[in-house]
Amino acid sequence: MRIVRIEHPRAEQGDPSTWATLDGDTLHVTAGPNGARTGETLPLAGARLLPPATPSKIVCVGRNYLDHIRELGNLPQGGDLPKEPGIFLKGPNTLAEPAGEVTYPDWTQSFHFEGELALVMGRRARNLTEEDALDAVLGYTCALDLTARDLQKTDLQWFRAKAADRFCPLGPWLETDLDPADVRVQTRVNGQTRQDGRTAQMIFGVPQILAYITRFVTLEPGDVVLTGTPEGVGPLERGDVVEVEVDGIGVLETRIV
Amino acid sequence: MRIVRIEHPRAEQGDPSTWATLDGDTLHVTAGPNGARTGETLPLAGARLLPPATPSKIVCVGRNYLDHIRELGNLPQGGDLPKEPGIFLKGPNTLAEPAGEVTYPDWTQSFHFEGELALVMGRRARNLTEEDALDAVLGYTCALDLTARDLQKTDLQWFRAKAADRFCPLGPWLETDLDPADVRVQTRVNGQTRQDGRTAQMIFGVPQILAYITRFVTLEPGDVVLTGTPEGVGPLERGDVVEVEVDGIGVLETRIV
Repeated sequence: MRIVRIEHPRAEQGDPSTWATLDGDTLHVTAGPNGARTGETLPLAGARLLPPATPSKIVCVGRNYLDHIRELGNLPQGGDLPKEPGIFLKGPNTLAEPAGEVTYPDWTQSFHFEGELALVMGRRARNLTEEDALDAVLGYTCALDLTARDLQKTDLQWFRAKAADRFCPLGPWLETDLDPADVRVQTRVNGQTRQDGRTAQMIFGVPQILAYITRFVTLEPGDVVLTGTPEGVGPLERGDVVEVEVDGIGVLETRIV
Repeated sequence: MRIVRIEHPRAEQGDPSTWATLDGDTLHVTAGPNGARTGETLPLAGARLLPPATPSKIVCVGRNYLDHIRELGNLPQGGDLPKEPGIFLKGPNTLAEPAGEVTYPDWTQSFHFEGELALVMGRRARNLTEEDALDAVLGYTCALDLTARDLQKTDLQWFRAKAADRFCPLGPWLETDLDPADVRVQTRVNGQTRQDGRTAQMIFGVPQILAYITRFVTLEPGDVVLTGTPEGVGPLERGDVVEVEVDGIGVLETRIV
């Protein structure tokens, strides 16, 4: 099932969004992200898609694909793999809608794309086991983890580098029927493939990531987890069109302006 | 004026909290954190105080007092001061109530206190100037920035070290009438003074911090900013009682269990 969040055409006050499920080309409005259909339908064409999550936090895994660790020169002495996931946070201010535009910040000279598989939590979760972790997931989607690579190397922490406004385009929707163990994750820039990995290459798989994160923090319904990026990251220019595609989900398109 | 958030005694479903202003020993319930009085009053005695903010993110300044930088051995080569604030994030999951308990985590051997002045935003803010920054602040309060010092040194980013559940006791209330330029910030452990600084010693003052942060992110109403800790940080033990006191605000008490 595909779960979509859209700008509601009759929104007036308060939350201007609504949730729906996608059936063919028809959106069936639902009461909440996993709720019953209200009976209202809308055509997908013309709907403005929004990031399919309203998180309290976005929890991200850094350095989770060996080839990406190697390309950034971050393999530790002796070549050992990370023994634990390296986690960092982005705030809800980083979300940007699918088919949206992101302005190239005037304070970085190295604005990088990182295409990723993301997931959105369906329920509150603490101390998940690897065995029950996937049951807490509502669905999967595509994320573009935008990164100011120059500031990532020089700042005390990855705040400007990772957490500035609109540094996390997310979408186009949640796919509930996906096994995250081995799906293809690609990033294209202006139609040219730049990243092409499979989640089977992740050092820590989704169940391990969720079990690890929830040892330390409570994940709330709607919280987003980014699972890391494969090799091939690189700089963007103004005018570039970035597509993140995860097989079985769809394509997240972002224009850099 | 003192703005208090309390567990509502007649809470049933949804948000179990309410806001009030404190007048002597009487709480006047208000419609929202800065709203009109509803006419309902409650005695302060017996009220359960909650963190006086419901943020979308908690933005923190690291290394903002020179003496604290020195005590951790973090002064850069040549002894230059930081040229820009070092910013990191904590999520809303870190909030803990005033007069609350925090469990010593079983995954750190060095659980440190850091007492700080905090502020809560009153309106949405982007690209604040130093001149207008304080107008966007609703009020000021005390924060205890709990830190797993051992993991802060070894982890990729300060996720476990700073952002685990209940790592940010906040309160007891918001004081709206405070000039943050030069107030005393003290931390006591079991009644013994361990930190005793003044905000005038901060490398970056509150207006500079807010102008800097809002160059990169939009602060939302209710968002919390922690302004850094003076020298004197140190390890906690189970059973310790930590008090963070900011002159003109009050005392935030936390028991480590």
